[in-house]
Amino acid sequence: MSTSISATVRLKSKSDRRIKAGHLWVYSNEVDIAATPLKDLEPGSLVSLETATGQALGLAYVNPQSLICCRLLTRDVRSTVNQNFLEKRFRNALALRESVYEQPFYRLVYGDSDGLSGLVVDRFGEYLVMQLNTAGMDAMREDLLAALKAVLKPKAILLRNDSPLRELEGLENSVEVAFGEWPDLLQVEENGVAFTVDSSKGQKTGWFYDHRENRRELVRWVKGKRVLDLFSYVGGWGLQCLSAGAESLCAVDASEAALDQLQKNAENLGFAEQLSCYEGNAFKVLESLLEEGQKFDVIITDPPAFIKRKKDLNKGTAAYKKLATLAMRLLEPDGLLMSASCSMHLPEETLVDLVRGAGRHLDRHPQLIYRGGQGPDHPVHPAIPETRYLKACLFRVSPSL
Amino acid sequence: MSTSISATVRLKSKSDRRIKAGHLWVYSNEVDIAATPLKDLEPGSLVSLETATGQALGLAYVNPQSLICCRLLTRDVRSTVNQNFLEKRFRNALALRESVYEQPFYRLVYGDSDGLSGLVVDRFGEYLVMQLNTAGMDAMREDLLAALKAVLKPKAILLRNDSPLRELEGLENSVEVAFGEWPDLLQVEENGVAFTVDSSKGQKTGWFYDHRENRRELVRWVKGKRVLDLFSYVGGWGLQCLSAGAESLCAVDASEAALDQLQKNAENLGFAEQLSCYEGNAFKVLESLLEEGQKFDVIITDPPAFIKRKKDLNKGTAAYKKLATLAMRLLEPDGLLMSASCSMHLPEETLVDLVRGAGRHLDRHPQLIYRGGQGPDHPVHPAIPETRYLKACLFRVSPSL
Repeated sequence: MSTSISATVRLKSKSDRRIKAGHLWVYSNEVDIAATPLKDLEPGSLVSLETATGQALGLAYVNPQSLICCRLLTRDVRSTVNQNFLEKRFRNALALRESVYEQPFYRLVYGDSDGLSGLVVDRFGEYLVMQLNTAGMDAMREDLLAALKAVLKPKAILLRNDSPLRELEGLENSVEVAFGEWPDLLQVEENGVAFTVDSSKGQKTGWFYDHRENRRELVRWVKGKRVLDLFSYVGGWGLQCLSAGAESLCAVDASEAALDQLQKNAENLGFAEQLSCYEGNAFKVLESLLEEGQKFDVIITDPPAFIKRKKDLNKGTAAYKKLATLAMRLLEPDGLLMSASCSMHLPEETLVDLVRGAGRHLDRHPQLIYRGGQGPDHPVHPAIPETRYLKACLFRVSPSL
Repeated sequence: MSTSISATVRLKSKSDRRIKAGHLWVYSNEVDIAATPLKDLEPGSLVSLETATGQALGLAYVNPQSLICCRLLTRDVRSTVNQNFLEKRFRNALALRESVYEQPFYRLVYGDSDGLSGLVVDRFGEYLVMQLNTAGMDAMREDLLAALKAVLKPKAILLRNDSPLRELEGLENSVEVAFGEWPDLLQVEENGVAFTVDSSKGQKTGWFYDHRENRRELVRWVKGKRVLDLFSYVGGWGLQCLSAGAESLCAVDASEAALDQLQKNAENLGFAEQLSCYEGNAFKVLESLLEEGQKFDVIITDPPAFIKRKKDLNKGTAAYKKLATLAMRLLEPDGLLMSASCSMHLPEETLVDLVRGAGRHLDRHPQLIYRGGQGPDHPVHPAIPETRYLKACLFRVSPSL
């Protein structure tokens, strides 16, 4: 089935600049609604996008209900957006992942950066988890499923349509098996370490592939070390540290289900003896570890986004700073602090500066020895700053010089 | 021998802020020269640094002839700056390197970040290359040599005192063997690949350790690929690609001596057959490769700093952009572009944006799949932006979507 072009959307004068610079989004105030009204367009329908002077910019899908009213799918106006079009995009995305990852565990499609704005697909071997985050992707659901089946021959596809982004698009949330039989638990391999996760109930798609390269870096430093993993989830960081020879792992998470799964993963890997778990608020657990006089050689702080919207910036930044300060107090001299943030609104420089400030406050000398972002299965689109959100900064923290 | 404190240097009101935030440098216009004149102080002598209200900030060495007139050595005013003090700094620096590198090839001391502002020491196994870039370090020369001998038991130490930084400090340039017997050629190992370099005549200290992690990343992508290495020097990037299974290497450099050494390194590694070399200006060689209709799967552009001073920003940025555009035209579809810059004044975002612009100009879709900086043997001091200079951005460049 191919999607036919329902209308033309004309931009105001100069509003084409960002699109011409490579970005894919049009905001609703950039449309010349006198010439091309948006309001009667079907959410998710395909439109032809043009400049104020009628120059074709490409094909986009539209959502009059969303602040981002158009998302460009292709700059080639002769394209036909159908299953074949989507298959090509999937094969292009797959080729990137297969050229660096030997095992079929990765984010297969990362929205805008893979030319499929609004779509996320995570691959767990023969199982795929898909998120349709926009009305345009929602409208293409059947073609997307057919194209995924054609390119990847999966055993099953789960639709995790429960992201907060769907609300902004006026879409309902649901989690459903769109194809095949979905297993209770999924196997994941990351950096050679095996995990089991629950993709239908866990956070996001069930696993956070985005920190893979940062974990790969951290494990170079952990042999024989005592590791504290804050916001541990099912053990992505901590269990990879144990697999790399860390002496012990203390995992902290607010979710009992996550810690249960972490415990099972540790048992499967043969590390149950080296593991201790604390269920609760990370800040409170840090305070009580401090009271107990505990010390660690390596501390990982990878919290959920403290800054979800721009208006949370000050409060969120203060929370990151408090976290860094508490963690630093628990570190042995010359210990390592992995300070991560998935808040798009927190610049890397600010994260580094927080640790600098904590260091001055506690009279320590932090050295930044690694800074990483998302792995290559979450490529950054150089024209779309929104595609770059992850920060992972590794510091060695010594006594003040 | 211990260095005694020759005087006190008092800062103007509020000029202590940067120092208190963690920075180590004092600019000459920040000193209250009415209270504590600088002009009669011996270049390189030790002073006690204090705020406008007489609060002690630490011990620094001074150079009245330099724009950066004081560099903090320690915040602990009770310290004695002597061989023992320097040994502690060296042991601390060594511990960081030894915790991640199995082989003794790395930058052992990276100036400010290791608490030794103005000093660089590169280690090539049992051979050390030292650069004294300030009057303060020059004055401590004998203690530094003694401390290095005590901590590292080297066979020889070469002083490569020929950096342009020395001119700013009013120091003469020279290259001399300060201790032991210096060999004609040095062995280096990086990421498991062996090289031979000439440390007494080659660029900087003879080898650029700073790109180690970026090369380690690139080689994951190169198996079976045709690689073009621009500004190749002795083959740091290119020969590591061949070692990782690249099909062929085309190396370009303006220095005949560098290409001769690269050729010998290739022979030693058994890759002479897969190598072709072009001596000349990289831009001109790129033009002629284009005329010949040549194509590559992987192109590395790692030029010398095009932006040495702030005033070179526009001209230098244009040169980086030209380079990226020419390279992109030589790339096969879905090829890889490693775009590096060691210009401290070129922000990473600008480098990424250049490639974005080149992509738009040529109707390509670049995806940023890795961004790296200096390795952990060049740690970044979080309060000193000047300690972070290296950028390496890896793009996959596909046809426009």
